[in-house]
Amino acid sequence: MMTRRAALGAVLAAGQATRAAAQAGGLHQVERWDRFDLDLSGPRDGNPFVDVRLSAQFRLGQRTVDVDGFYDGNGSYRVRFSPDTEGEWKYTTRSDRRELDGKTGSFVCTRASAKNHGPVSVRNTFHFGYADGTPYFPFGTTCYAWTHQPDELQQQTVNTLRTAPFNKMRMCIFPKWYAYNRDEPRLFPFPRTGSENDYTRFVPEFWRNLESRIAQLQSLGIEADLILFHPYDHWGFALMPPEADARYLRYLTARLAAYRNVWWSVANEWDLVKGKTPETWDGYFRILQESDPYGRLRSIHHSRVMYDHGKPWVTHTSVQGDEFQKTPQWRDQWKKPVIFDECKYEGNISQRWGDISAQELTRRFWLGMTYGAYVGHGETYVDSKDILWWSKGGVLHGESPKRIAFLRGIVESGPAEGLTPLANPYYPAAGKSGEYYLYYLDYHQPVVAGFNLPADVKFQADVIDPWAMTVTISDDTYSGRFELKMPGRPGLAVRFRRVG
Amino acid sequence: MMTRRAALGAVLAAGQATRAAAQAGGLHQVERWDRFDLDLSGPRDGNPFVDVRLSAQFRLGQRTVDVDGFYDGNGSYRVRFSPDTEGEWKYTTRSDRRELDGKTGSFVCTRASAKNHGPVSVRNTFHFGYADGTPYFPFGTTCYAWTHQPDELQQQTVNTLRTAPFNKMRMCIFPKWYAYNRDEPRLFPFPRTGSENDYTRFVPEFWRNLESRIAQLQSLGIEADLILFHPYDHWGFALMPPEADARYLRYLTARLAAYRNVWWSVANEWDLVKGKTPETWDGYFRILQESDPYGRLRSIHHSRVMYDHGKPWVTHTSVQGDEFQKTPQWRDQWKKPVIFDECKYEGNISQRWGDISAQELTRRFWLGMTYGAYVGHGETYVDSKDILWWSKGGVLHGESPKRIAFLRGIVESGPAEGLTPLANPYYPAAGKSGEYYLYYLDYHQPVVAGFNLPADVKFQADVIDPWAMTVTISDDTYSGRFELKMPGRPGLAVRFRRVG
Repeated sequence: MMTRRAALGAVLAAGQATRAAAQAGGLHQVERWDRFDLDLSGPRDGNPFVDVRLSAQFRLGQRTVDVDGFYDGNGSYRVRFSPDTEGEWKYTTRSDRRELDGKTGSFVCTRASAKNHGPVSVRNTFHFGYADGTPYFPFGTTCYAWTHQPDELQQQTVNTLRTAPFNKMRMCIFPKWYAYNRDEPRLFPFPRTGSENDYTRFVPEFWRNLESRIAQLQSLGIEADLILFHPYDHWGFALMPPEADARYLRYLTARLAAYRNVWWSVANEWDLVKGKTPETWDGYFRILQESDPYGRLRSIHHSRVMYDHGKPWVTHTSVQGDEFQKTPQWRDQWKKPVIFDECKYEGNISQRWGDISAQELTRRFWLGMTYGAYVGHGETYVDSKDILWWSKGGVLHGESPKRIAFLRGIVESGPAEGLTPLANPYYPAAGKSGEYYLYYLDYHQPVVAGFNLPADVKFQADVIDPWAMTVTISDDTYSGRFELKMPGRPGLAVRFRRVG
Repeated sequence: MMTRRAALGAVLAAGQATRAAAQAGGLHQVERWDRFDLDLSGPRDGNPFVDVRLSAQFRLGQRTVDVDGFYDGNGSYRVRFSPDTEGEWKYTTRSDRRELDGKTGSFVCTRASAKNHGPVSVRNTFHFGYADGTPYFPFGTTCYAWTHQPDELQQQTVNTLRTAPFNKMRMCIFPKWYAYNRDEPRLFPFPRTGSENDYTRFVPEFWRNLESRIAQLQSLGIEADLILFHPYDHWGFALMPPEADARYLRYLTARLAAYRNVWWSVANEWDLVKGKTPETWDGYFRILQESDPYGRLRSIHHSRVMYDHGKPWVTHTSVQGDEFQKTPQWRDQWKKPVIFDECKYEGNISQRWGDISAQELTRRFWLGMTYGAYVGHGETYVDSKDILWWSKGGVLHGESPKRIAFLRGIVESGPAEGLTPLANPYYPAAGKSGEYYLYYLDYHQPVVAGFNLPADVKFQADVIDPWAMTVTISDDTYSGRFELKMPGRPGLAVRFRRVG
């Protein structure tokens, strides 16, 4: 991250990635898809969060990008920008305050480093990819309130994620008040006195902690699927007046949109949030569209009533449930990727959404993948300190993550375009026509399984055991209609890969 | 069975059950719900199957029952009657042939013996019961073509059924032509020359064999769920002209309706039978209603398109599939018992309907029961002689039957009225309000499970393992809202029984 304090002309190199790229004497350098922070000093009087307007226009050639700034407390103002094109970007600030208006400067956007693939967007209608062309197959997990926990626990979550198989994290901006979540967080997004929130101001320390966690996820290759509203609240954040909601959305996009790993999940279980209608959420989607210069991925998650994912501002569907077999229909209907962000969690708590077996969650990942969707993980094992991964993070106890890693390896070694569900297969199956086929046999246990593949192509057959995490590669090759000998036990998958 | 050759005045005691009841010098005796056969000699010329009309009116007090007779070959005519009331029944025959008309006589219907509970009918809207008040909970199996196999194999099937847990058998009148079923049967229902059937005549030997098998099932306490039409045919029986269908239906009801364990399944996979519409089946239901003096149970089984089970002649639904969760809705809609007669079979053949694991079929029985339905069994393990239980009978190889026996024991020791599904339970659950609750936790594995039972009643809690077939009875009793400690592994059930 390159930080430029224009008022002083001093370079404050605050980010590891760009520190190496800073060159003495030359223009400030920011690598592509990374962040440029323009820091300005301005008025401290009144309430700068609402009294002061600040934005900047960034230009490269004939292209301009308008970016809102934000007040970061203590007279410090910031405009945060993520360049998507290499070259020299110039900027000019605009403000209703003289000391912030008309500031100009430039920086050079350099080539992305090896681990920086850029932001994720929708690719091939039903899939995702990084901006540099690398495929991205979401294998998400859920730690709703991990950034509201004590620092050591937040750091433990990060450490766990280093070796976990997940590349997406569902997490709430607001803290969570719910079963197993009865702690008051140290920081709130708004100043809070007793039980009163001042929705006209923000708490920069809260937001800086959130940013540092998003940056840590980015360094681990994990997308931050940020949940902007949710119903599990006792502080008032689910019941803010509309103008406070809008101000919050504009402030968070000004601060966070420049993080290339950010996705917007407008709400978790939107239909359980009181006093907000589908039209309310429509309006919030449009605020995101107006405020986010990068068009980060946008969705919304339901409990019982599904939001109309056909609306144009929804980039992908974020489904709850286990009706994986509906995926082909939903793909046809919405022409968007389908993610089952919640299909219940591996665990043993007394709530039925958090007590499914590791076998069942592993099965659901396979069902989802072979019906043409993506599936999310969560874990809820009883803990003496009520630290459940699904909300607070910490460590993982379950048996499904290593099987999810195994599946992720299979999917990532498959077609780069993603898997397309096959019409009317005997078992749920997805693949790439003529190249690759993945069948999940679930509770079926044939000793001989029939397949019908293209006749003019040779395929290698691999029998996969998703639980034992083994792949048995056939000696023979197969074409056309044929029968494959199988071990005759349930829970297996079969993969065919083109070999000639 | 009491056989009375009225023309000769001689008693031919052909059935074991009533032979003991026959009393020298007194009136012929038939126990209640058993069969009285009135045998008559008549013309052999022409085609007696269609040329001769014969029926009898049976009378007890002011009550009369009209029963059609049938031609049994070799100049032998028969009227078969099953009395449902004790006392002296008188009869008079009617015929368009002088030698068969106006024959009179009587017999005494005696008390049913201990093992004879009478026919099964619908009880408590969603359940079944025998006529003597004994509850009947269907635990059916399927051997579609077992009566078309060589005699030794038929007898082996009967022997297997002696110790199997099943009390209903789905079986076809017509032979079956399908995968694993490519043998020509020795007997056909109609005379067959080359590839031509004479639909105006019947083959008594075929029907006598079928009757003897139905009688054997009856002696084992097994209901014969007779499938009258099905699509898996290469002899022409699925494509008979309507008048042949009607004649066949009237002949089979005249012969078979008096067997108290007979149910009518008008068709298997009716929607796959070519040239017959729902209106065709409506008409066949009405023929059964007109021809069957006892109103035996009537249903019809679909493949993809469900028949409208709301029609008044359908006594219970015979469903295909595994959407057990729809049972409460179907009960509300049709107000009839729901039987999942086919939910796929335990086995390992290459067809997906016949390759599910024993664990999965056991699970489906539990799901069905706890959603308020009944479930049927079938078995399809690869066999070197293509003798698969689901069609030919023989022996059972699977692991589910003993678990089905275990479940049957549980259900039969539960409420005599049958189980009612509970609204909105955490897990599928059914019971009798205030008395008995059965929860199936499936893939859930809580270490503590919450329940909400009546507060003024004490319940004993039993943790049931449907696969291990164990019941662990709690030392404590429970009431109202409480949490129950659980083993924390998947696949269990919990039963609560009132103890005070």
